[in-house]
Amino acid sequence: MSNVNKVVLAYSGGLDTSVILKWLEDTYNCEVVTFTADIGQGEEVEPAREKAKAMGVKEIYIEDLREEFARDYVFPMFRANTIYEGEYLLGTSIARPLIAKRLVEIANETGADAIAHGATGKGNDQVRFELGAYALKPDVKVIAPWREWDLLSREKLMAYAKEHDIPVDFAKAGKKSPYSMDANSLHISYEGGILEDPWAEPEEDMWRWTVSPEQAPDTPTYIELTYQKGDVVAIDGKKVTPGQVMEQLNKIGGDNGIGRADIVENRYVGMKSRGAYETPGGTILLKAHRAIESLTLDREVAHLKDELMPRYAELIYNGYWWSPEREMLQEMIDASQQTVNGKVRLKLYKGNVIVVGRQSDSDSLFDESIATFEDDAGAYDQKDAEGFIKLNALRLRIAARRRR
Amino acid sequence: MSNVNKVVLAYSGGLDTSVILKWLEDTYNCEVVTFTADIGQGEEVEPAREKAKAMGVKEIYIEDLREEFARDYVFPMFRANTIYEGEYLLGTSIARPLIAKRLVEIANETGADAIAHGATGKGNDQVRFELGAYALKPDVKVIAPWREWDLLSREKLMAYAKEHDIPVDFAKAGKKSPYSMDANSLHISYEGGILEDPWAEPEEDMWRWTVSPEQAPDTPTYIELTYQKGDVVAIDGKKVTPGQVMEQLNKIGGDNGIGRADIVENRYVGMKSRGAYETPGGTILLKAHRAIESLTLDREVAHLKDELMPRYAELIYNGYWWSPEREMLQEMIDASQQTVNGKVRLKLYKGNVIVVGRQSDSDSLFDESIATFEDDAGAYDQKDAEGFIKLNALRLRIAARRRR
Amino acid sequence: MSNVNKVVLAYSGGLDTSVILKWLEDTYNCEVVTFTADIGQGEEVEPAREKAKAMGVKEIYIEDLREEFARDYVFPMFRANTIYEGEYLLGTSIARPLIAKRLVEIANETGADAIAHGATGKGNDQVRFELGAYALKPDVKVIAPWREWDLLSREKLMAYAKEHDIPVDFAKAGKKSPYSMDANSLHISYEGGILEDPWAEPEEDMWRWTVSPEQAPDTPTYIELTYQKGDVVAIDGKKVTPGQVMEQLNKIGGDNGIGRADIVENRYVGMKSRGAYETPGGTILLKAHRAIESLTLDREVAHLKDELMPRYAELIYNGYWWSPEREMLQEMIDASQQTVNGKVRLKLYKGNVIVVGRQSDSDSLFDESIATFEDDAGAYDQKDAEGFIKLNALRLRIAARRRR
Amino acid sequence: MSNVNKVVLAYSGGLDTSVILKWLEDTYNCEVVTFTADIGQGEEVEPAREKAKAMGVKEIYIEDLREEFARDYVFPMFRANTIYEGEYLLGTSIARPLIAKRLVEIANETGADAIAHGATGKGNDQVRFELGAYALKPDVKVIAPWREWDLLSREKLMAYAKEHDIPVDFAKAGKKSPYSMDANSLHISYEGGILEDPWAEPEEDMWRWTVSPEQAPDTPTYIELTYQKGDVVAIDGKKVTPGQVMEQLNKIGGDNGIGRADIVENRYVGMKSRGAYETPGGTILLKAHRAIESLTLDREVAHLKDELMPRYAELIYNGYWWSPEREMLQEMIDASQQTVNGKVRLKLYKGNVIVVGRQSDSDSLFDESIATFEDDAGAYDQKDAEGFIKLNALRLRIAARRRR
Repeated sequence: MSNVNKVVLAYSGGLDTSVILKWLEDTYNCEVVTFTADIGQGEEVEPAREKAKAMGVKEIYIEDLREEFARDYVFPMFRANTIYEGEYLLGTSIARPLIAKRLVEIANETGADAIAHGATGKGNDQVRFELGAYALKPDVKVIAPWREWDLLSREKLMAYAKEHDIPVDFAKAGKKSPYSMDANSLHISYEGGILEDPWAEPEEDMWRWTVSPEQAPDTPTYIELTYQKGDVVAIDGKKVTPGQVMEQLNKIGGDNGIGRADIVENRYVGMKSRGAYETPGGTILLKAHRAIESLTLDREVAHLKDELMPRYAELIYNGYWWSPEREMLQEMIDASQQTVNGKVRLKLYKGNVIVVGRQSDSDSLFDESIATFEDDAGAYDQKDAEGFIKLNALRLRIAARRRR
Repeated sequence: MSNVNKVVLAYSGGLDTSVILKWLEDTYNCEVVTFTADIGQGEEVEPAREKAKAMGVKEIYIEDLREEFARDYVFPMFRANTIYEGEYLLGTSIARPLIAKRLVEIANETGADAIAHGATGKGNDQVRFELGAYALKPDVKVIAPWREWDLLSREKLMAYAKEHDIPVDFAKAGKKSPYSMDANSLHISYEGGILEDPWAEPEEDMWRWTVSPEQAPDTPTYIELTYQKGDVVAIDGKKVTPGQVMEQLNKIGGDNGIGRADIVENRYVGMKSRGAYETPGGTILLKAHRAIESLTLDREVAHLKDELMPRYAELIYNGYWWSPEREMLQEMIDASQQTVNGKVRLKLYKGNVIVVGRQSDSDSLFDESIATFEDDAGAYDQKDAEGFIKLNALRLRIAARRRR
Repeated sequence: MSNVNKVVLAYSGGLDTSVILKWLEDTYNCEVVTFTADIGQGEEVEPAREKAKAMGVKEIYIEDLREEFARDYVFPMFRANTIYEGEYLLGTSIARPLIAKRLVEIANETGADAIAHGATGKGNDQVRFELGAYALKPDVKVIAPWREWDLLSREKLMAYAKEHDIPVDFAKAGKKSPYSMDANSLHISYEGGILEDPWAEPEEDMWRWTVSPEQAPDTPTYIELTYQKGDVVAIDGKKVTPGQVMEQLNKIGGDNGIGRADIVENRYVGMKSRGAYETPGGTILLKAHRAIESLTLDREVAHLKDELMPRYAELIYNGYWWSPEREMLQEMIDASQQTVNGKVRLKLYKGNVIVVGRQSDSDSLFDESIATFEDDAGAYDQKDAEGFIKLNALRLRIAARRRR
Repeated sequence: MSNVNKVVLAYSGGLDTSVILKWLEDTYNCEVVTFTADIGQGEEVEPAREKAKAMGVKEIYIEDLREEFARDYVFPMFRANTIYEGEYLLGTSIARPLIAKRLVEIANETGADAIAHGATGKGNDQVRFELGAYALKPDVKVIAPWREWDLLSREKLMAYAKEHDIPVDFAKAGKKSPYSMDANSLHISYEGGILEDPWAEPEEDMWRWTVSPEQAPDTPTYIELTYQKGDVVAIDGKKVTPGQVMEQLNKIGGDNGIGRADIVENRYVGMKSRGAYETPGGTILLKAHRAIESLTLDREVAHLKDELMPRYAELIYNGYWWSPEREMLQEMIDASQQTVNGKVRLKLYKGNVIVVGRQSDSDSLFDESIATFEDDAGAYDQKDAEGFIKLNALRLRIAARRRR
């Protein structure tokens, strides 16, 4: 084992990271700093303090990062209408760079020379944590116990916990969900269990944040989102922070059966995997943002954004948030959002997000006087179209004549 | 007026094209050939024969193109998961190249030197008709009466029809819908009227092909689609032709409130316009095709397709179906579909298209033995991930060290 | 003719624009403001003042725009390594937006309601002038005499000039070059004449700015360029302005036979045309900028720039400098240049631009300790490569197993 | 060590691979099959037979792959005008997939379960060999001795050779070039030595295939290349095979000082490295292919190719020749080349490749009657340009009005 003096651990207080905590101390003979963050996963983080204390940890970081997460990660990503492989709203991917950044910052504050995480060696999350950490602190040592140890089953973990007197709620740990889950303000995800058969439909009781469309109310809910520079700043006319946007839209979306996705996706490490996701607020945001852009964005800007979006999504999915190419694309995306101001009115009904109106007093490029089917009083000269078509056709005509 | 001896007119038998027929004869002193096609618009085409005869037309073409339209235009387009500006399934755009091709072929058969259409000078359809015609018959003369005449209102058209004894159902023509509509096997569209205010919600009685999600059945409908090389070849295990796919999916989709879209789009001629669309079958096809691809397509192939899709969609929207660049992209898209074989199971419910299963005996790239959260018996070596991450991080680390 | 009170004319003082001046007054019964700019074409602009006065013009603008042209147009373009269709350095294209901008600004200052230019109806320049003008002053009237009048030959122009007592140097005008030429600080171009046969080699006496490689010195010239944020700021260690960069590199490049290009290009208006270009300084700049970027730019940033460059070049070629999509791309390009600092050493010899050294004390990402073929003291762990390759190969292996 | 019974080794007969041969036998206790190919590196391959025999090898493969290499690898790549990072013609990269393919085929023929190569753990070549091998034979074992052993210097290799009685020409091995070199029909490359300082100019005596521009003849050489479907099929009117194309153009290019490149490139494994390359024939081919395409390719097809080229180049550079995404792009590229037929005339002079003519009787899209500056007899209506510009400007004008 290489020399490690102090390691910052992304710590949830659950079975896995509690075992890791102990294992790190024993294996590396090092001090452990714990870091526990509220990023909207919907579980209390404060209990992690007592558990860490009970295990002898001296430096304990517990933080509420919900606003930062929404403002600096989720919102910038939605400015690009980001979606991976046509279906996935990147709920897990977008949280990792923030965790990586805080791990590194805490390592710098506490003089730690390593960080550790509880992600497995098969998934994307290890890549996202580690690329972020290396980009921000290039000589950091990263410890990924799942790639090193042989505690590869729940039973072994529990035996290890018992053997080492690790304070774990064994009753709760024993009844664990059959799914591997991850949650934050943007989404909750499910993998494993019966989902490993892509032909099997998820069971209704798996879902936690949304009712099914069938169980959603029989009457629609209307909401109005106000945008400034591509971000939601008010809901139904009431000013809200980014964190509140996520919270309120998750609630209203979940209540209306919105935001379930069930997909097979391509992991960066080379395999296909099946995942189920609930992203109620994000599903609303994607639809609404496209709607306000449809009114306020130039055509060619919108098309260029659409062409670059899959690349941008791939970067985030693969863990390259803290890369110069992501930052370079972000400059362009953010520059495009200066005029994305206005309001979108939405109807939410049993899984559907329906745009029913969009408006921008300051920046609408929709010109009724030109677009109208009625008399336009000369705003548009229909005769221009002939020349437009003729010159666009010229290369096709020359080629067609040549072919004869 | 330039010399025109004979012109082939895209003729519906309605007020507009009946007036055009007469106007062409009078203005160009030429013979008119009529061409009327059933492309799934849901109206009888045979009555156009009597009307054309009554107006003295000698060469009358009436054709059922529904299979050709689905097979050679709609299906190839859906192989690319094509969608314009994130929302529009290109229902109008994809029909125009077929009409253009038949107009040109009929001109060649009948010795006509011109073609004519009833599209206005503000829209995309004139471009699509004419680019197609020029690409296929470079020296054809195109007549677009709406860009030439001064009959710019319904009243003037009706007056002209009366004055020239044109056989028109004035009762029907007088009660015309407030919307400008277009329909074919893929969709029906609405523009104009109250839609010219992008803040106004469409009225429920505008929609013709779909019930509202509210009025759709309270129990879901499950269907199973079988794919061969990217195309649907069977529904619920029963072999179907491309034309039948469209017909059956439109029915089942429309019954379940699926496929409404209400968008502001960017026209090729430079303005934004608001349109409402019903595309029930197409909405199902898009979702299902992505699902079968998720199982059978290589990751990088899928991502490359995603990056090129907006460009491909733009080409079709703008009228460049008959261009070498569209054909070149199609070669690539079609090549990618060799392994897109298998089945998708869908749940349709009140506007939702939910993928509940996908399967491919012959071509699935989903490898459960590798993806599993359980013991994988060495199929995947987790230690490989460390080197993978380290080398992917190398450039980021070098840059970070340099920044310090 | 629509009402025009005052028109700003891009005026060179030569035959064509002198005739246009008179023709505008007569045809539109309007006042003409002349605008003549030095953008490095290598001809005196001051004589245009006397000629304009002689023709009764009251508002005469004569300006030296060489620094602005180099700083705000040429330099930003070279940050992207811009080249159209693999060969053309966009010398004409990049000057038009500046002219368009000044025409519009002068129109605003003088209260003119129209602008006029001397570009023909077949070329790209009309598009570049007019798109720029419309983007900056949307209701401006644009007059393009070559698309309106019937003075379509040199003889007719000269006859018109004589008839209207236009002060023209008939001796000079009569001996005009067989080529249509355009010049500015970036290049000089030739079209027409024997170049209309793409199989014909240009005659040696056509070229004006460069000696032939054969006639260039037999000993090479070495120069050193210093870059700050992607722009050249010093030559051989001596600080220079952007305008001086162009002037000095044109001289040294031309003396060494550098920068001739002879190409068939695709015009935006739909035809192919053959052009010959001399771009001595630009040819050096392109090579040198790539070299400094090779040392200081991240790999993925460089690759993304390379992928977007053809689009950016197309925008400039087609006349969309003053468009939101060009500005959006520029944001990204400029953001990438923060670290493009350092020096490039070049050897110039008989048409060749050879990079012989590149260096960046502040921003080099070339890490000798890692790249070395010698012992690297553990800077790079060769064993990481195995995992890197294994995971990158995983999808290929799964697919290969499936194929068997 | 895992069980290996028989391994196919890419064997040159030199010091390194001779040591590997012995080391494999000793380390893995397995049989070794040698594979030596002539891919135009300019060294005899037959001597490898005696050396292998002397070391007791029973299955010896020695093959002349020059035609296959040129026809199936180099030529398809040049159809795309492929160039990596603006400068590198991919000479090493394009040879690796062929070697990988033959290694795998020989493994299948001889019943070997492993392959081995002599590439180091820092470079791109290991990746290219191994990705290819895994894609073609997913369960093959790959042995890369440089990543495993500790013979990390020339001295240790020579000591090992002496100790094990390996027949090596010690005199030759001891005088080895200071550069790491690789050669084939497309190029010869140099890395290491003084090149590890990017500010140092290569020494003249390093270069092997080209004279310097200074030493090249004082009179130019003209050649004419005939193209069919994007490939050269004749030189100066004389039919040639792909292998002969490479041989003859390398000769004539090298004689004229053509094809040297000196660059800093970004390796796939994450570091920058400095390389010098001689690619005389390839440099001619790139220029000539662009010239014949400029005459025969549609504008939008050409631009799409240009936009995708960097991606295609990256795939080849990174080792993904045998991937579905490369094959998919190749389908598109090859489809574009159907009309790329005709002749290109070139002037070669002291490092310069100058296109002086291009011609295509069958497929030229250059229409002199339209492009001419003279009277075009109505082939092009200049008035069409006004409508073309007006509609292209419409979105810009609407936005500009909105901004006021």
